Amino acid sequence: MGYIDELGIAARKAEAAMTEIGTTQKNDALRAIADSLLKNKDTITKENKRDLENAKANGMTEAFIDRLTLTEARIEGMSTGVLQVMELKDPINEIIGGETLPNGLIVKKVRVPLGVIGIIFESRPNVTVDAAALCLKSGNICILRGGSDAIYSNKCLTSIMREALKGAGLPEDAVQLVADTSRAVAGDMMKADNYIDVLIPRGGGGLIRSVKQNSTIPVIQTGEGNCHVYVDRFADIEKALNITDNAKTQRPSVCNAIETILVHKDVAEQFYTALNKKWNGKVKIYGDEICAKYMNIDRPATDEDYATEFNDYVIAAKTVSSLDEAIEHINKYGTKHSECIVTINLDNAMKFQRCVDAAAVYVNASTRFTDGFEFGLGAEIGISTQKLHARGPMGLRELTTYKYLITGCGQIR
Amino acid sequence: MGYIDELGIAARKAEAAMTEIGTTQKNDALRAIADSLLKNKDTITKENKRDLENAKANGMTEAFIDRLTLTEARIEGMSTGVLQVMELKDPINEIIGGETLPNGLIVKKVRVPLGVIGIIFESRPNVTVDAAALCLKSGNICILRGGSDAIYSNKCLTSIMREALKGAGLPEDAVQLVADTSRAVAGDMMKADNYIDVLIPRGGGGLIRSVKQNSTIPVIQTGEGNCHVYVDRFADIEKALNITDNAKTQRPSVCNAIETILVHKDVAEQFYTALNKKWNGKVKIYGDEICAKYMNIDRPATDEDYATEFNDYVIAAKTVSSLDEAIEHINKYGTKHSECIVTINLDNAMKFQRCVDAAAVYVNASTRFTDGFEFGLGAEIGISTQKLHARGPMGLRELTTYKYLITGCGQIR
Repeated sequence: MGYIDELGIAARKAEAAMTEIGTTQKNDALRAIADSLLKNKDTITKENKRDLENAKANGMTEAFIDRLTLTEARIEGMSTGVLQVMELKDPINEIIGGETLPNGLIVKKVRVPLGVIGIIFESRPNVTVDAAALCLKSGNICILRGGSDAIYSNKCLTSIMREALKGAGLPEDAVQLVADTSRAVAGDMMKADNYIDVLIPRGGGGLIRSVKQNSTIPVIQTGEGNCHVYVDRFADIEKALNITDNAKTQRPSVCNAIETILVHKDVAEQFYTALNKKWNGKVKIYGDEICAKYMNIDRPATDEDYATEFNDYVIAAKTVSSLDEAIEHINKYGTKHSECIVTINLDNAMKFQRCVDAAAVYVNASTRFTDGFEFGLGAEIGISTQKLHARGPMGLRELTTYKYLITGCGQIR
Repeated sequence: MGYIDELGIAARKAEAAMTEIGTTQKNDALRAIADSLLKNKDTITKENKRDLENAKANGMTEAFIDRLTLTEARIEGMSTGVLQVMELKDPINEIIGGETLPNGLIVKKVRVPLGVIGIIFESRPNVTVDAAALCLKSGNICILRGGSDAIYSNKCLTSIMREALKGAGLPEDAVQLVADTSRAVAGDMMKADNYIDVLIPRGGGGLIRSVKQNSTIPVIQTGEGNCHVYVDRFADIEKALNITDNAKTQRPSVCNAIETILVHKDVAEQFYTALNKKWNGKVKIYGDEICAKYMNIDRPATDEDYATEFNDYVIAAKTVSSLDEAIEHINKYGTKHSECIVTINLDNAMKFQRCVDAAAVYVNASTRFTDGFEFGLGAEIGISTQKLHARGPMGLRELTTYKYLITGCGQIR
């Protein structure tokens, strides 16, 4: 029996035990976790330092080390995050439908946990606590597999959470860490469809593709965002500039930032000229010929640029001859995340929303709003870019399924 | 470029065209298909005969040949089925949620098609028409891969449907058949995640496992049914007998029929004795020691029996000491399809419904009710036994996803 089997068997036992745990007890456990994170600040930073030293010795980038770092303020942030999840409405046992059939059978459709959720993520230890809190509140068991560079931090955080669970009378195996971060074990995890009901990779495109290729467990893809703003021929140019600027530069590293602007030829001169002035070199431009006439481009745009998520102060630009061409470009290169048209023409707005295939399709607003908090979900485990199960920001409700409970008095067919 | 790429590219084009097709046009197309099936009865039976002759020459079983056969009555049945799907409410564009955010952004959650659905099924040509009708009505494109033994029937049915689509102004590539039924092409299809959004295997356990193992496309597993009736210590024995008999013998070949009975030891003598009398050899019994005392068993039950979907007049029996033992047995051996407790004790009924992990959990009613028609969905493409996306009977609504349409007037973050 392999290592993952052991975790899986423990997870299934915890799952059975969780069916008898109500909202109050789950909330008590979450409060205990939040408290314990604060109480153990010193231990956490000490263990985190071990990861940081290794990362530095391994020559990791500054951005990587920043994501890996747990300062006192960040630990307090994680604790507050857990309390916020605690305060969200419990989605479990909600009756989401039902009826009495002609034969008298009473059918209720009731929201239940997905079961055991596997989460594979990179070296961001805050995800460990975030993900565990969301899974717990939604009655799910989680098996967390973080990056090897964060192993000391993750071990420490997980053991703090497990102790708090135990204290609150919950099965401690409701939160488990894959402590062996070897590739072989990650491979085993992706095939453990007996023990894991859903796998959620959180991280870059490479990680997501690898999980999709190798997993026999249903996967929810999240977070790939090659997003666009299309400046229509009927755009309010001032709004188009503000939206483009916000969607590209307010936080370029995130998945709902844009990577390409599509500009209708009739407004190209006006828009490009104004944008060139506004950015004044702040953003690197890969543009087509028309763009190059009015902007200081870095180099001509390639097809590969149009397919790239830069996650940086870099943008590709393409001039289009029609709304249809814009829609076609987006449906070809986009990752079905967030897309925007700037226009005052209602027909064009409606057509864009109807024909663009993405989780969130905007008219006259920044793509940066695609977010669990902004959408009022309270928190999110990721932004789904696939169509099965959940699309867009995934909150507690998106971590559930349903079952039919049917009650009769001897009905047969 | 391979064969599947060609189908995939055509499917994506059809998908784009379908965004402009409304309910009336879809209904016209469905009516045209229903009419054309009737008009072409002779051609269909002629092509079907070619399949039947091959099947006989290949020594296929009688049951296989029965499923493959398209009689005149069955063709009429298919046609009526298409009209029934036509009459169902169109799920597309339903607004299923929404709100105005504090910043004035209007967010609508709107039901949209999944996109391109791949369906892999065995040699039952009626599935070709059923599945296509459900996909069409829900705005989806389908790529159908039926068993090679039904290839002449499937080609004929598909070409009739495509012609009808064309006549009604719909893209004919909305319905496509994988005419090359080689294993290699089936393998390509399971990896065509660029072109296919969801894969639904319809058939036996072997087919489903193969798709799950090999597909990089999200899969919906349907139709595996190792279902149970648990006769509680507080069961009304008369009802328990009727439900057991109905759930086993009314139609043993289907997935919502039961395969094992679990009997509480306190009522074992009474229940087994009465069931033995009722069935009187009609059903083969694999039982444990206690069962053997009161029933004419065929042989002792093995662990493998408890894991087997007999789909026949065969049942396994096990005596249990408690409700907990019954729940544990079901959660271990069941396929998360349909499970039933017979009891008049409310606590036990509630516990069973809470703790048994299945799509449909019954109290005092036959498992045979798990069915799209019985549940009022109007039709079904299958019964999902997985937890992601849809659970239990899948109707039109379960063939959709949603997107967020957000409309603003220049909002930025």
